[in-house]
Amino acid sequence: VLNDFWYVAARSAEIGAVPLARTLLNVPVAFFRTATGEVAAVRDLCSHRGAPLSRGKVLADRIQCPYHGLQFDASGRCVHIPNQRTIPASAHLRAFPLVEQLGIVWIWMGDPEAADAAAVPLTPWREGAEWNAETTYYYHVRASHLLMTDNLLDLAHVAYVHAGTIGFDPSRLERDPLVTEVEGRRVRNTRILPDVEPGPVVRDWGAFTGTVKRTSISEWVPPCFTFIRFVNEDAAAKVEMRIDHLITPETDRTHHYWVLVSRNFRIADPDLTRRMYEDNDRVHHEDVAIVEATQRSLDGCPDFREMSIAQDRGLNAAHRILAQLATSSAG
Amino acid sequence: VLNDFWYVAARSAEIGAVPLARTLLNVPVAFFRTATGEVAAVRDLCSHRGAPLSRGKVLADRIQCPYHGLQFDASGRCVHIPNQRTIPASAHLRAFPLVEQLGIVWIWMGDPEAADAAAVPLTPWREGAEWNAETTYYYHVRASHLLMTDNLLDLAHVAYVHAGTIGFDPSRLERDPLVTEVEGRRVRNTRILPDVEPGPVVRDWGAFTGTVKRTSISEWVPPCFTFIRFVNEDAAAKVEMRIDHLITPETDRTHHYWVLVSRNFRIADPDLTRRMYEDNDRVHHEDVAIVEATQRSLDGCPDFREMSIAQDRGLNAAHRILAQLATSSAG
Amino acid sequence: VLNDFWYVAARSAEIGAVPLARTLLNVPVAFFRTATGEVAAVRDLCSHRGAPLSRGKVLADRIQCPYHGLQFDASGRCVHIPNQRTIPASAHLRAFPLVEQLGIVWIWMGDPEAADAAAVPLTPWREGAEWNAETTYYYHVRASHLLMTDNLLDLAHVAYVHAGTIGFDPSRLERDPLVTEVEGRRVRNTRILPDVEPGPVVRDWGAFTGTVKRTSISEWVPPCFTFIRFVNEDAAAKVEMRIDHLITPETDRTHHYWVLVSRNFRIADPDLTRRMYEDNDRVHHEDVAIVEATQRSLDGCPDFREMSIAQDRGLNAAHRILAQLATSSAG
Repeated sequence: VLNDFWYVAARSAEIGAVPLARTLLNVPVAFFRTATGEVAAVRDLCSHRGAPLSRGKVLADRIQCPYHGLQFDASGRCVHIPNQRTIPASAHLRAFPLVEQLGIVWIWMGDPEAADAAAVPLTPWREGAEWNAETTYYYHVRASHLLMTDNLLDLAHVAYVHAGTIGFDPSRLERDPLVTEVEGRRVRNTRILPDVEPGPVVRDWGAFTGTVKRTSISEWVPPCFTFIRFVNEDAAAKVEMRIDHLITPETDRTHHYWVLVSRNFRIADPDLTRRMYEDNDRVHHEDVAIVEATQRSLDGCPDFREMSIAQDRGLNAAHRILAQLATSSAG
Repeated sequence: VLNDFWYVAARSAEIGAVPLARTLLNVPVAFFRTATGEVAAVRDLCSHRGAPLSRGKVLADRIQCPYHGLQFDASGRCVHIPNQRTIPASAHLRAFPLVEQLGIVWIWMGDPEAADAAAVPLTPWREGAEWNAETTYYYHVRASHLLMTDNLLDLAHVAYVHAGTIGFDPSRLERDPLVTEVEGRRVRNTRILPDVEPGPVVRDWGAFTGTVKRTSISEWVPPCFTFIRFVNEDAAAKVEMRIDHLITPETDRTHHYWVLVSRNFRIADPDLTRRMYEDNDRVHHEDVAIVEATQRSLDGCPDFREMSIAQDRGLNAAHRILAQLATSSAG
Repeated sequence: VLNDFWYVAARSAEIGAVPLARTLLNVPVAFFRTATGEVAAVRDLCSHRGAPLSRGKVLADRIQCPYHGLQFDASGRCVHIPNQRTIPASAHLRAFPLVEQLGIVWIWMGDPEAADAAAVPLTPWREGAEWNAETTYYYHVRASHLLMTDNLLDLAHVAYVHAGTIGFDPSRLERDPLVTEVEGRRVRNTRILPDVEPGPVVRDWGAFTGTVKRTSISEWVPPCFTFIRFVNEDAAAKVEMRIDHLITPETDRTHHYWVLVSRNFRIADPDLTRRMYEDNDRVHHEDVAIVEATQRSLDGCPDFREMSIAQDRGLNAAHRILAQLATSSAG
């Protein structure tokens, strides 16, 4: 796991008067929001006996242990031990830098000195007036985050896994092949189908009657993010979406998966918002299902060796970048 | 586990247009039936990324991976990789020889060269016109297959475990003892009770009013099969059954358990068929319950050493045969 | 685990015509009551094939294996093997000394020679005419027994964990501090609050209208017992309770937890008995919840090191006594 990156911790609305418990990168974290509205994150074990602080109470700018009442501020400092004057250094907790931005709380689990808020990935389409960015999803996935990353880097799966939702005729895979570009640490996969039936649910979003030009540009950014631009258009209509896939490892075998969907058409149509919410939820569940099934297969066969095929070029590039980052961070 | 044997994989009706996933001898297998009606079995991990093929689609004589659309034929050969001309040898899957016979699909998990269809155990009573062989059962059992084998080899348990169904007065165990014969790799246990109350559910099958002559001949055949001939008769009636107990290990701690029941009396009486179906289902659940409970006991006490008693002669013979087979197959 | 102590095995009513299965100190035990009313306990694996005797039948003074009918008496001696004359020494089972006293069955899992019935902890308040001792509780707790012992030895948790039931204002922790006394192997924690609001549910028990004098005396006795005297009184009323907390390890990560509540006021008031039953049940569930949550936290962070605070003096003393006992019993 790569520590020196910003990861998504939660959607803003999840952190309020009641603490939130969530394990990220194998570390249990207690999140809380102080009376002045700041978000805070500390290791979710009281330094005294290990009780989970996330079951405790928030008192103004502190979190109080549910077991014996020790209190900690947002920086992790122990500020109160009942019936005791001195507070030893070992009482303090590890705290984690956070950035709250556009409804998302980002966390830095690595060296706090290296935390630079400017490095949080930008999603400008989520704040422009011409975009509707209100739809977000969260999934808890019982599979390694690497398997979900592989899923997102391989646009060919769309023709099979999503055949009933946003898929297209698999024979087009060959006619209009994927173009893979690697720029520094980024991997971009582009597929343009100039004249194709829109996916079953996509037809309805754009009120398309015939074939469309379909453009998918998927940009992967380490360690765990994939930003997809998805455009379907014909002479009469054009629907453009930005789908941000944000992954945070929970354990080696599970991860948190957020999807943020923005669109720039019929943005004030609540019926379409609701319908697209449900359509895209089906799409994401299709991904979760195949990724979890693959994890179970691999768990049962630890000797399995994977084989690369032609369309895995982008995926292999991402694997190389991750391996380099792991080496340099270990060094 | 002994590989070079035929094992039961499924009942024919389980394998159709939708693939079947089943783990046998610790190997996950995807079963499917081609358009021409042939059954096929391949290892249930796509050679590309490990996705379970059993979640895919059957296309005429092929199975298609649900994830990225690779296609495999019944021999395990990869015959299509989307957007790629060459198919490397590493793309092919392991396939397993199958024999479909009398409604049962048998599988060979060992060296394919050694698979000889003639070695599938014969059950001639399942095809004779004077037999009704329509009743079959399947149970998934959370215990080592060895514990179920022990259960079936020890006819004394009938007096206790099946007291409420097909059991008899335990005092008869001493008066009419078990006769054990070993012939090559086969172990035969015979018990004849010349004059005994029929078991509570057996009385009804034969419309017996008094005592009966009860004959049980149980023949064990390695690695996992027990064929029982069970006869109850008085001056007026005779009911004869063949009960084939067919076990396939799933993992070291679980197994598949099929029971095929044939009878040669009132064979065209659907009411009796239904009643006997339910009666025997109770009997098998009694076996499953005691075997699973014993497994849980043993799991909790890894230091347990079993003790043999007089009636374990047949069981000990079977253990010796299995040990010899394991040694010779290891060599 | 310390073997040479009496532990609670069951409440008397749990052991009757049907055997009881319960694992204690990692050993599965089958309990039964003979026709003459004696309780008996033997290892819950038949010496023959390991089947659980607790699924068998009680025949007068014996328990019969559900699988093949072997019979054992209350001393663990095998007294019958079907169809076999000689009974080998290896057929006998380990049996455990028991003492039944005041509705509780105590068990000795250590060296049987050392079992001295006089060493069973005495609870005289449970038999005096001025006491109502009819209320007892049982909880199965998914946490090490040591964590529950820690909970009971630290009376400060009452102000936090039990704030909504029997708690008090946490600021009193400092004003009226805990007094800890160690006498041999016993640890006594005393806290007297001379003038405090009674706990939310306590107010109702005594019909208190204002503040009360609140006395808690908690005496811990190795290996796993905590006897609490809890008194609330004002000028008009005095309510006194004895709460016996009796723990028996089940496995390293789970334990059995009995609580016996006796009171010496309004002892013939069944409405109060019912209400107090429910109130105290809430209190115990608060303890179980925090202890299980702490276990889960610690399981996820095996590198956690606890930190002692001022009020842990009694708890640390108990830990030292347990360590000494473990050393001397190992020697």
